[in-house]
Parts: sequence; C-alpha cells; structure tokens
Amino acid sequence: MGSDSDLKIMGAAAEVLESFHIPFELTVVSAHRTPLRMVEYAQKAKERGIKVIIAGAGGAAHLPGMVAAITTLPVIGVPIKSSNSIDGWDSVLSILQMPGGVPVATVALDGAKNAGLLAVEIIGAFDQTIGNAIAQYKSDLEKNVQAKIEILKSSWPNTFDI
Amino acid sequence: MGSDSDLKIMGAAAEVLESFHIPFELTVVSAHRTPLRMVEYAQKAKERGIKVIIAGAGGAAHLPGMVAAITTLPVIGVPIKSSNSIDGWDSVLSILQMPGGVPVATVALDGAKNAGLLAVEIIGAFDQTIGNAIAQYKSDLEKNVQAKIEILKSSWPNTFDI
Amino acid sequence: MGSDSDLKIMGAAAEVLESFHIPFELTVVSAHRTPLRMVEYAQKAKERGIKVIIAGAGGAAHLPGMVAAITTLPVIGVPIKSSNSIDGWDSVLSILQMPGGVPVATVALDGAKNAGLLAVEIIGAFDQTIGNAIAQYKSDLEKNVQAKIEILKSSWPNTFDI
Amino acid sequence: MGSDSDLKIMGAAAEVLESFHIPFELTVVSAHRTPLRMVEYAQKAKERGIKVIIAGAGGAAHLPGMVAAITTLPVIGVPIKSSNSIDGWDSVLSILQMPGGVPVATVALDGAKNAGLLAVEIIGAFDQTIGNAIAQYKSDLEKNVQAKIEILKSSWPNTFDI
Amino acid sequence: MGSDSDLKIMGAAAEVLESFHIPFELTVVSAHRTPLRMVEYAQKAKERGIKVIIAGAGGAAHLPGMVAAITTLPVIGVPIKSSNSIDGWDSVLSILQMPGGVPVATVALDGAKNAGLLAVEIIGAFDQTIGNAIAQYKSDLEKNVQAKIEILKSSWPNTFDI
Amino acid sequence: MGSDSDLKIMGAAAEVLESFHIPFELTVVSAHRTPLRMVEYAQKAKERGIKVIIAGAGGAAHLPGMVAAITTLPVIGVPIKSSNSIDGWDSVLSILQMPGGVPVATVALDGAKNAGLLAVEIIGAFDQTIGNAIAQYKSDLEKNVQAKIEILKSSWPNTFDI
Amino acid sequence: MGSDSDLKIMGAAAEVLESFHIPFELTVVSAHRTPLRMVEYAQKAKERGIKVIIAGAGGAAHLPGMVAAITTLPVIGVPIKSSNSIDGWDSVLSILQMPGGVPVATVALDGAKNAGLLAVEIIGAFDQTIGNAIAQYKSDLEKNVQAKIEILKSSWPNTFDI
Amino acid sequence: MGSDSDLKIMGAAAEVLESFHIPFELTVVSAHRTPLRMVEYAQKAKERGIKVIIAGAGGAAHLPGMVAAITTLPVIGVPIKSSNSIDGWDSVLSILQMPGGVPVATVALDGAKNAGLLAVEIIGAFDQTIGNAIAQYKSDLEKNVQAKIEILKSSWPNTFDI
Repeated sequence: MGSDSDLKIMGAAAEVLESFHIPFELTVVSAHRTPLRMVEYAQKAKERGIKVIIAGAGGAAHLPGMVAAITTLPVIGVPIKSSNSIDGWDSVLSILQMPGGVPVATVALDGAKNAGLLAVEIIGAFDQTIGNAIAQYKSDLEKNVQAKIEILKSSWPNTFDI
Repeated sequence: MGSDSDLKIMGAAAEVLESFHIPFELTVVSAHRTPLRMVEYAQKAKERGIKVIIAGAGGAAHLPGMVAAITTLPVIGVPIKSSNSIDGWDSVLSILQMPGGVPVATVALDGAKNAGLLAVEIIGAFDQTIGNAIAQYKSDLEKNVQAKIEILKSSWPNTFDI
Repeated sequence: MGSDSDLKIMGAAAEVLESFHIPFELTVVSAHRTPLRMVEYAQKAKERGIKVIIAGAGGAAHLPGMVAAITTLPVIGVPIKSSNSIDGWDSVLSILQMPGGVPVATVALDGAKNAGLLAVEIIGAFDQTIGNAIAQYKSDLEKNVQAKIEILKSSWPNTFDI
Repeated sequence: MGSDSDLKIMGAAAEVLESFHIPFELTVVSAHRTPLRMVEYAQKAKERGIKVIIAGAGGAAHLPGMVAAITTLPVIGVPIKSSNSIDGWDSVLSILQMPGGVPVATVALDGAKNAGLLAVEIIGAFDQTIGNAIAQYKSDLEKNVQAKIEILKSSWPNTFDI
Repeated sequence: MGSDSDLKIMGAAAEVLESFHIPFELTVVSAHRTPLRMVEYAQKAKERGIKVIIAGAGGAAHLPGMVAAITTLPVIGVPIKSSNSIDGWDSVLSILQMPGGVPVATVALDGAKNAGLLAVEIIGAFDQTIGNAIAQYKSDLEKNVQAKIEILKSSWPNTFDI
Repeated sequence: MGSDSDLKIMGAAAEVLESFHIPFELTVVSAHRTPLRMVEYAQKAKERGIKVIIAGAGGAAHLPGMVAAITTLPVIGVPIKSSNSIDGWDSVLSILQMPGGVPVATVALDGAKNAGLLAVEIIGAFDQTIGNAIAQYKSDLEKNVQAKIEILKSSWPNTFDI
Repeated sequence: MGSDSDLKIMGAAAEVLESFHIPFELTVVSAHRTPLRMVEYAQKAKERGIKVIIAGAGGAAHLPGMVAAITTLPVIGVPIKSSNSIDGWDSVLSILQMPGGVPVATVALDGAKNAGLLAVEIIGAFDQTIGNAIAQYKSDLEKNVQAKIEILKSSWPNTFDI
Repeated sequence: MGSDSDLKIMGAAAEVLESFHIPFELTVVSAHRTPLRMVEYAQKAKERGIKVIIAGAGGAAHLPGMVAAITTLPVIGVPIKSSNSIDGWDSVLSILQMPGGVPVATVALDGAKNAGLLAVEIIGAFDQTIGNAIAQYKSDLEKNVQAKIEILKSSWPNTFDI
C-alpha cells in the first residue's frame, strides 16, 4: 500500500488471504515518497516467489500502475477514497485507465476485500485446494443470504421463500 | 462478449492471446438477451479447463459481474463505450463497482488489449514459458520507445537521449 | 432487494403498497450472491400471479436488469446509494442504461417510495378502485402543501395565498 | 414528445407499439412552449382511455415529470441527448430524480425502444395476448444471438458453442 | 419555493429583499404536487404587479422552468441540494439547461442570497434609490474584507496591506 | 464576449435584441487578456446608460463573474463550450458557482439566445411595449408547435390534436 | 487567499514557507469583493520583489486566474472545497482550465501544502541553499515511510522490508 | 512526453520556448513502458542544468507525478486527452491530485502552450531579460484583442470601443 493510513482499507485484503491460508507479505511502498524502493520492490517480486501483487493507493494513485510497469506479475489495484480525494474519482481513474501494454486489474473503490478474493481466484485457478476453498466461499455467501431471509420473515410475514 | 458488435473492441484481446500462443475460445454470451446461456457458460467454464474468463460489455454492463457471480475463475471485465453509452461511465461503473465477495478485474474503457495481457500475466505467473514471453514483451515495449526517439531526433535535433 | 441492508430504503416501497392495500411479497434475491435463486425467482414470478416486480440494489446494481432479462413482467429498478457507492452514480447507471430489448423502469436514487407508487399507478391503470385511490393520493399531496402554506403564514405574514 | 426534432429518437417507441399491434397516438406536447396544452393533455389522458404515457424530452427535460404530476397514469420518461445537452446528463437527471410522490419510469438515454417495450410489458401483465407476444419477443432476442454466433464461427473457428 | 423544507435555504433570499426594503411575497408552489396552482400563480403574477420571480427547488427541479414557461417576467432559479439529490447536479442541470425560448436566470447551488441580490440589481437598474443602495452594499462587501485583514494581522504579522 | 471566436455563439443574443428593437452594443472584453479594459468597461457601463450586461466566455470563464464584481447592473452569463473545454463543465461551473454577494444570472451552455431573451424580459418588466412584445413572442412559440403538429399528421395519421 | 475563511486550508502553504525560512506575505485579496485591490496587488507584486504568488479560492474561483492575467510572475492556484462547492469540481475547473496565454500552476484540491512546496521548488531551482533544503525534505519523506514500516512490523509480522 | 503521439499537443510548449529563445530539450520518457529510463532521467535532470521539467501524458497519466517524486525541480504537468481517455478526466485527475509532499504544477487539458509560458514565467522571475519578454508578450495579447475589435466593427457597427 502507498501509505500506512491505507491500512484501515487494505487490511481487508490481508484478512481474506489469511482466511484462505495463503501466505502473503504486507508493506508500505510509496510511488511518490519512496520511488526507488518501489522500483526495487517491483523488480524483485517475481524472483522472490510472489505470484500476485495487490497495490492500493488514493488520490493521484500511481503505485499500482507503476508496479505493473516494472513487474511481469499480475497487479491488482485498489482505488482508495483518501481524505482529499474528489469523491474517489481520482484514485479510480488513475488506476483503471492504464495505457495499452500495462494492465492493472482494478477493483471497486475501497474494494480491498475483493482484491484479496481476486488474488485467491487467480491462485485457485492453478491450485485445486484453493480452487475448492473458493467454491466453498461462494456457497457460504449464498447460505448467508438464506439465513438473512429467515430473519426477515420474523418482521415481514409476507417474505417470499423459494 | 455481450454482443457481436463488441468484436471490433474485443478482437484486440484475442490477438494478444494468439500472439502468445495461448489457446482460447471466443463467443457471444449476452447477460440480458441469453441469460440462461450465460448461467450455463459460467457454470461449466472451470470444468472445461478454462483458467481465465475475459468478459466485455457496454452500457449497463452486467455480463462480467454476473459471470463472476457464478464461476470461481478469475473474471477480467472490459468496459466498452457502446453507441448509447453516457461517455463510457455506465459501463465502467457497472463492471468496476462490484460488491464485496464477487470481484471483477476491471481494465480501462475499451481496454481489451490489456485484458488479454492481464490474462497472459496471470497464466505466466504459473507457467515459466509464458512468464518469459511476457518479460520479452515488456522489453520490446521499451525498445519500441527507443526507436521512436530515434525518429524524433530527425525533426527535433534537441531531442535528448540518455 | 439485493441485500437485507437495503431494507431501510426499500421498506418505503412496501409501506406504499400496504397503504393502498395491494398484496405484495418481499424478499432478498442477490444477483451476485444467489444468482441461481434470482434466475428461478424471475422465471416463476409471472406464473405465480405477480404483476409488477420492484428490484432495488446498490453499487454495480445488476439485480433489476437481470430480473428484467428473464421475466416478461414490468420491472421497476431502485438505485440505492450503498456505503461504498461513488455518490450513487454506479447504481443509477447500472440500472438505467439497459440495452435495447430489456427495459427497466428506473426511479430516483433511493426512490423506493416512488417505485411503490409507480407499481400502484401501473395496477391502477387497469383496476378502477386502485385508479381512484391514486387520484385521491394525488389530491392529498396537494392538500398537504396547502396545509403547510397555512403554517408558513404564521412566521411570514407576507405569505401569498391564491 | 417535447419537440418534433425528438421524432428521430421517439419514433423507435412508436415502431415497437406498432409491431405489437398496440394502438397508440403520437404528438408534440411541449412543457415549456405549450404549457397549457400539456396540462390539458395530461388531465384528459386517462378519461380518453389511455393506459400508459411515454414522454421524451431533452436538456432540462420537464415534460415527463410535469405530465406525471397531473395524470394518475404511469408515465415512462425518455431522456434525449439533444444538441445542446451536456452529454445527456441534464435530461437523465431532470427526468430520473423526481421527488417522492410523483414517479416517472425512466429508461436509458435515447432509450425510446425500451420505453415502447416497457409499455408493452405493462399492458402484457394484464392482457394475455400481449403477454404471450412479449414472451415470443424475448425468445426471438435469444435466437438472434444464436444466429450471430453462427456467423462468428466463419471468421473465428475457435468460437465456442454450447 | 417548491417545498416548505426549502425555507432554510430560500429564507436567505427573503432576508436580502427585506434588507433592501423591497416588498415581496413568499409561498410554496410545487410544480409536482400542486401543478394547477403553479400554472395559476405564474399566469397572474405579472398583472398582480410582480417584477421578478425567484423560484427554488431541488432534485428534478421543474418549478423555475415551468414558471418561466408561463409568465413573461424574469425568473431567477435557485438549485437546492435536497436530501436525495445526487450532490446537487440534478437540481443545477434541471434549472440551468432550459431550451431556447424559455430562459431561467440560474444562480449557484443553494445560492438563495444571490438570487435575492440579483432581483435587487434588476430592480436597481430601473430605480435609482435601489441602484444606489446596491452600490452601497458592494462598497460594504469591500470594507468587510478590509476589516478581516486587520484581524488577520494580529495572528500573522506578515499580513500584507496596500 | 471574451473572445471574437465566441461570436458564432454570442451572435444569437444580438439577434434576439435586434428582433425586439432593443438598442445594444457588442464588443470583445477579455478578463484574461485585457483585464484593465474589463475593469474600465464594467466601471462605466451603468453611467453610460446600460441596463443589462450579457457576458459569454468559455473554459475557466471569469468574465461574467468579474464584470458582476465591479458593476451594480444585472449580469447575465453565457457558458460557452470552447474547443479545449472539458465538455462545457468548466465554463458552466466557473460562471454559475459565484460566492454570496456577487450574483451572475447564468443560462444554459451555449444559451446565448436565452441570454438575449432574459435581458428582454428584464427590460419588459419595466417597459410595457417590450413587455407586450415578449408576450407575443411566447404566443408565437406556441403557434409554432401547433404548426409542427400539422406537419406531423401527414406522416403519422395517429397524431393526436386537442 | 480570496477569503479569511480559506485560512484553515491556506495556512499549510505558509507553514511550508516558514519551515524553509523563505520570507513571504499573506493577505486576503478577493477577486469578487475587492476587484480593484486585486488589480493593484497583482500590478505591483513583481516590482515589490515577489517571485511567486500563491492564490487560493473556492467555488467559481477567479482569483488565481485574474492575478495571473495581470502579473507576469508565476501564479500557483489552490482550489478550495468551500462550503457550497459542488464537491470541489467548481474550484478545480475554474482554476485549472485557463485559456492559452495565461497559465496558472494548479495543485490538488485543498493542496495548499503542495502549493508551498512548489514555490520552494521554483525558488530552489535558482538558489542552491533552498535547492539543497528541498532535497533534504524529499529524503526525509522517504525516511518517514521507513519509520512507519518499522511500526507496521509490530502488528503485522509478515511486513516486508527490503 | 509519455509517447511520441503526444507530440501534436506537446509541440506547442516547444514552440513557446523557442519563441522566447530559451534552450530546451525534448524527448519521450514513458513512465509505463520505460520506467527505468524515467527514473534515470529524473535523477540526472538537475545536475545537467535543467531548471524546469514539462511532462505531458494522457489517460492514467503517471509521468508528471513520478518525475516530480524523483527530482527536486519544479515539474509542470500537461494532461492530454488521448484517444481512449474518458473525456480527459482521467489525465486531469491523475496529474492534479498529487499527495502532500510531491507537487505537480498542472495546466489545462491539452494546455501545452500554457505549460511553456509557465516555464517562461518561472525563469523570468529570476532573469530580467526573460521577465521583460514575458511582459511584452502580455502586452501583445492585449493588442491582439484590440485588433480583433477593429475587425468586428466592420460587421457590427454597434461594436463598443473604449
């Protein structure tokens, strides 16, 4: 992430990876305040065995795109609605609108949870255990909705149930 | 893709995959006009051996998100600026702003080329041959810039060259 | 509605229907977390005797459009300004900008009350009792304004009254 | 429609109604240039036997909302991207963002075809013949996609077909 | 104004008129809830001796434009950022983007104070006493800034003063 | 106007004033290229007998607001969609969003015709001849619509006529 | 700055200049309330020895552009998100979108700190002491990130450190 | 500039510098395709005697901000409306919304001419010859307007002239 203040958003990605027992590392790499550290990080990530990089930043968010420019690993970008952001549009567009040749897999504004899940899906496409775990996760999402319908019935008797 | 009219954009993704010799299939699956075909396609994609799905659509673009809701494979979404689009904002937001639990890896508006490259990077993270090819691709991007600087020198003698 | 958290908005539609004594059912059907339930719900709605479907969702709001893709009933869509929404633009555009062939009757952001009233108007166009009730409702809106003008006069003596 | 120049867009609604053999009338009623005619039109529409009103207008588009304020019939609003429009945002927001109590069923920018279809769906919810016709229409949409997939196969042999 | 809830904004216009001793009337005229009252109000305003109409409304704000369609008096429109407004864009565009032939003099979002001042300037262009008063008002604005510079000096000794 | 290139838009205001036989002057006063000329122009306008100032400009359009800051006459601002404008938003917001104390009567993007009409309405509120002429103008607008309905009938026999 | 209420934002620019021991003056110059003072200020700034002007304003923010129109010094503009601003877009566009011939060096919304730093960089390009100080500042930014990484390690043991 | 295709826009900056006889160099440095070249360029620019860097880029435009992160020279950023840009908003926000600590002096969309002039103003603040030349330039802007007023008089005899 580009700043330690992004942790309150980006922590959700870490929690997802932990819940799937996928080893990960977490750090601050600022494109604007530590540009050389960013270059070095991106250059060495693949040889250190990393499979997917998740980069979150706010405002004129250059971290995801710059890391994607240097590494050949897939980079997932999380636009963060930072304090001086113009409603989040700046971070969304700075991350999404990459030129041809340098893709960033962008998720929703403040969507760090989905960034984690996307990383899990990428790994799960090549690892059967993780693949099965993500299938279980989706099934749990569905059960969770069903449970909420049961609760809804208590206040709205005309709740429909298939 | 959601419509055959999207082919003029989405063809760029196919060309990238061909250039990396990655086998792929291409078809029209419309979330709105063929919803049951979409469900069936998404349900069977993984068992048929697919690793990554690229889905492009315009306007209220529901295809990438709906496919992502059904499959456990990573889904790359390409927002397309279709004829009645409000400057592309509708397709960008319909694909990007997925709720927690169902990620879509969104690329730039009309960014099908990057969708193809992102798929290559995902596969390349787990396949050394493809990984090397993507490194070669990045190196070619750089050489291409250098070649253009040479051309620039002919009309602007004060062109700087490191 | 797409999530039980939407109830605080969507409840207003239920209240309108209750006030017109129109029988209705209410439930959670998530396009993204329960896609197959959504398909089944939309496929069976007409044969179960439903006349109008009101679907509310936030963010990349696919529920109204996907239900409209499957059923032949009129579908009213309510864009909801959910917590991570980009000022509501994402839900508005995801619901409004449907492609030719699959209409959704979109109401204002968080406009669940109007969704209920639109459903009443649709039924009232074919049912004289409901038609009269909606005429009465409109007349009450007008009287309500007149009552507020009376209150205004107490603090602003130069309040104009026709 | 608010102006005869809107006919090139609004004609698509008329064509849909004709194709479903639904009788309709078409005229120009301008909220801004013929406000009294608009009031009279809206006041008398229901007693003249009309079931649904489709109103299209561009810019600061007041026609759909003003007609909805006067009639008790369902009103479908079509935002039109007129020549001096700010990319269509003005007509979309002027029609969509109606206050509680006065709904307008808004369709996509320039979405007159969908306005026609929505009217057909509303009538079809109460008329079995029209109901069946709209089901046939949806089935044709699907067949149309299938036909395009066949064409696609000729240029892309790796086109997938379920 | 379109609703009594707009008084907290529109009161500022009344205060300006009071401070210039310009007689005015204030009332609620809703384009959507009391359309016939609106028509009657706009039709009779000029013959009743009114010189300028100030109309404020939020969301799909049709009041200023509809009044302007009926009267031949100058109409000043105040876009109000109402509770369900999409950041005020809906009211701004619904009031500003009037078609050729029917102007509305639009002021800033929630700019009721300026609406009052604009009315004073219009009257002041034809009435020397009011014209002088508005010149005095402008001079006071300037003195007010000068007074604030004096205060600023106490905390910032390097405050510049011409 | 701020530039001679604005004449193709601003000419419409001049034409309206000519058609109402209202004397006017027309010139280029650039806030950014001739700031002192602008100050002088605004300072002397009232004493020279001018009643209303119409100022049009594009991009970061400062002319209307700056003239309004100096004169005590009513100033009508016309946002112009100039070549490098960001879809006209820059000129609209630069003219509309004036701070409390300094109003500008803003009309639609490129709405010079309406600026002329608004000036006529302002003068007509204090001059009976002009007041009658504007009433005639409005009546002609209405007849014009009626004439277009007659034409419509020839191609659409189901055109409705009150 | 255009108003004393902007001090809570613009104070950050003053603090930066103080920290670099660069002499500066601070005052209120309102384009709209004190236009002649603004003209005089801008006309005399260069001969008084000033090297860079920082101008901050909100809403229809004309101060930076108007000062830039009069002086030949570089002008840095700070868009301020004032209370009635439409999410800051008005101030950003009013300052940024200057016509060819009159540049304003615009910084981020509420970016007064960066305005101060930009002034320091401009001076530092011609003054070696300031140039060295800004290099030291950048190095401190980097160390600051490193310090935060150390803190991060205590709660996240898998924090990565180069 | 980030790409040779930006030359048609960025050439205007070069022309301005040439017209003021200010030596400059011009090249392509792509943040995304040649990241290491960009780092090297930014690191060495100051020691090579450069005073101001002008960087133009489109879409997710990271070049100006990344150069500003590495150098201590003032960096002027030119947002370019490239072919796949979302109306230029992406490049504007990617360049403008820099975080505290790393300023970029942003000019208007496609505003390369103003970028050149801003560089001249910066140099002119410390170099009397250039300072005088920029004053002459401003005076010529004014004369240019006067010349256009003369032309205007031929077609509009009521053109006003101070």
